[in-house]
Amino acid sequence: MAEHIEVHEVGLRDGLQNIKTVVPTDLKFAWIKAEHAAGVKEIEVCSFVPPKLLPQFADAEEITRRALAVPGLTVAALMPNLKGAERGAALGVHKLNYVVSVSESHNLSNVRRSTAESLADLKRIAEFLKGIEAGRRPKLFCGLATSFGCTIEGNVPHDRVVSFAEAVAAIGVDEIGLADTVGFGNPNAIRTLFTRVRKAVGPIPLLAHFHDTRGLGIANVAAAIEAGVRAFDASLCGLGGCPYAPGATGNVVTEDVVFLAESLGFDTGIDLEKLIEVRKIVAQALPGEALYGQTAKAGLPKGFAYAQARKAA
Amino acid sequence: MAEHIEVHEVGLRDGLQNIKTVVPTDLKFAWIKAEHAAGVKEIEVCSFVPPKLLPQFADAEEITRRALAVPGLTVAALMPNLKGAERGAALGVHKLNYVVSVSESHNLSNVRRSTAESLADLKRIAEFLKGIEAGRRPKLFCGLATSFGCTIEGNVPHDRVVSFAEAVAAIGVDEIGLADTVGFGNPNAIRTLFTRVRKAVGPIPLLAHFHDTRGLGIANVAAAIEAGVRAFDASLCGLGGCPYAPGATGNVVTEDVVFLAESLGFDTGIDLEKLIEVRKIVAQALPGEALYGQTAKAGLPKGFAYAQARKAA
Repeated sequence: MAEHIEVHEVGLRDGLQNIKTVVPTDLKFAWIKAEHAAGVKEIEVCSFVPPKLLPQFADAEEITRRALAVPGLTVAALMPNLKGAERGAALGVHKLNYVVSVSESHNLSNVRRSTAESLADLKRIAEFLKGIEAGRRPKLFCGLATSFGCTIEGNVPHDRVVSFAEAVAAIGVDEIGLADTVGFGNPNAIRTLFTRVRKAVGPIPLLAHFHDTRGLGIANVAAAIEAGVRAFDASLCGLGGCPYAPGATGNVVTEDVVFLAESLGFDTGIDLEKLIEVRKIVAQALPGEALYGQTAKAGLPKGFAYAQARKAA
Repeated sequence: MAEHIEVHEVGLRDGLQNIKTVVPTDLKFAWIKAEHAAGVKEIEVCSFVPPKLLPQFADAEEITRRALAVPGLTVAALMPNLKGAERGAALGVHKLNYVVSVSESHNLSNVRRSTAESLADLKRIAEFLKGIEAGRRPKLFCGLATSFGCTIEGNVPHDRVVSFAEAVAAIGVDEIGLADTVGFGNPNAIRTLFTRVRKAVGPIPLLAHFHDTRGLGIANVAAAIEAGVRAFDASLCGLGGCPYAPGATGNVVTEDVVFLAESLGFDTGIDLEKLIEVRKIVAQALPGEALYGQTAKAGLPKGFAYAQARKAA
């Protein structure tokens, strides 16, 4: 059996977050269904922010309800605070994703509060979730944004990231992510920091959330795989560019991450040809938007075999 | 002192080869001068093919002469056969690049002869060059195309690549390149094959020539660096897409390769901001052509320092 790598789709949240075109709920749901049918097991379907702030997520409740009706799909959603957690938990979402920036300035600029306040809120959310009966309790994920550098502060010390990971682990989350939010990471930094955090937080699963801002995204995924990471966020068509860097792509491309993982001998459970077909829905939903991804453009190599099939052969 | 990585520009040859727009010699020369001024020490300036075959290289003699007048620049040129070698040597070119595909079918399709004939021709070229006095003798490079897979044959056995590298080393070349011509490679295959070839050919310098066809180009460069490779071909703006795969980018992007190498602590001697400026000449030379490269779009990270400066600090 080939070892498994989980690829989580974040295009419907991180990808759409900065895109002006509001995607109709029907198209979002078609995208979710098609991508799940291609083998993607976990999808972040929306953000529970106030609809006034982000009209893109005005249908958060509806898309969550519809996604929850897809058998076998793990439905995740971002929440900015306890109120968002309450909305998500009331709907029965499977996983709640929370983000705090390790860079103080980035956190202030992004969510208008100090990192201490953000961590205190995470603690309140964890307490709130503990009050829900085990079978209905959403899992709690915390992502550490700007773990590899910050557009405002520049360097972010590894020691500080490790302290944050320890603090978040002590609060009692189910999964921790290190995010290269702005594309400052490189394979050496990825290996070093994931190895340190792994030692610091023990058995809590780690996830990597990388952006391809400066072209190193897939190289960073490869480095994280080497460092033992087995769960990755990615965005179909590489959606998720930063509004302040025109032309800069955002998240690593789901299709290319899957191609990398399968090429390296890891089973993703994802059918690449079906996954590439889902791009048509994204193209329909976002006319004129730049869609990234090399595997989709070139197609699979002649003689390509999935990791599981190679192991079985 | 930070260890050095050499990045060779191949955009003027591999990049322009499949582009219909014939670039005026003055713009080619402006590109060469500007990129050398940014710190690129070796540029493949043309191909010595018959002008009827590729009008893009009808100015091969002229651009070579002008490039040879740039102090400190290593001028390389591709030659398809002995006749091309004679043309290049007569001009006083510094390095002659020859290519043979490891895949028999690819070689037949690409240069219309068997690999045995191609290797026999390489031997004639090596003999011819030995007849030139040492100070004026061009260096001889041989690239092994399709080393990581072939669009016609699919898998290319590592054993066969190693045999080819041994044969080429025995003929007496100065440098050997392993090329992922069609983007089938992955970091594991890169590490394994470069390590095997290194053992097989001893001290002959190795170079990596990678295409980013399926998004793994930069990850493959990172893997080759880990395997000890210190010379890379790359193409400004990622020029060099395959004419049979519309939208598929070609060579790894010079700017992103330099950003990776410097991020990993290797000195390239290249000024990234100056290098990014050279894109304007390419944009002027090729209106309407898709220009790739993430570092150029996003700019350098805040607080970015070159490897040499970091070592000195």
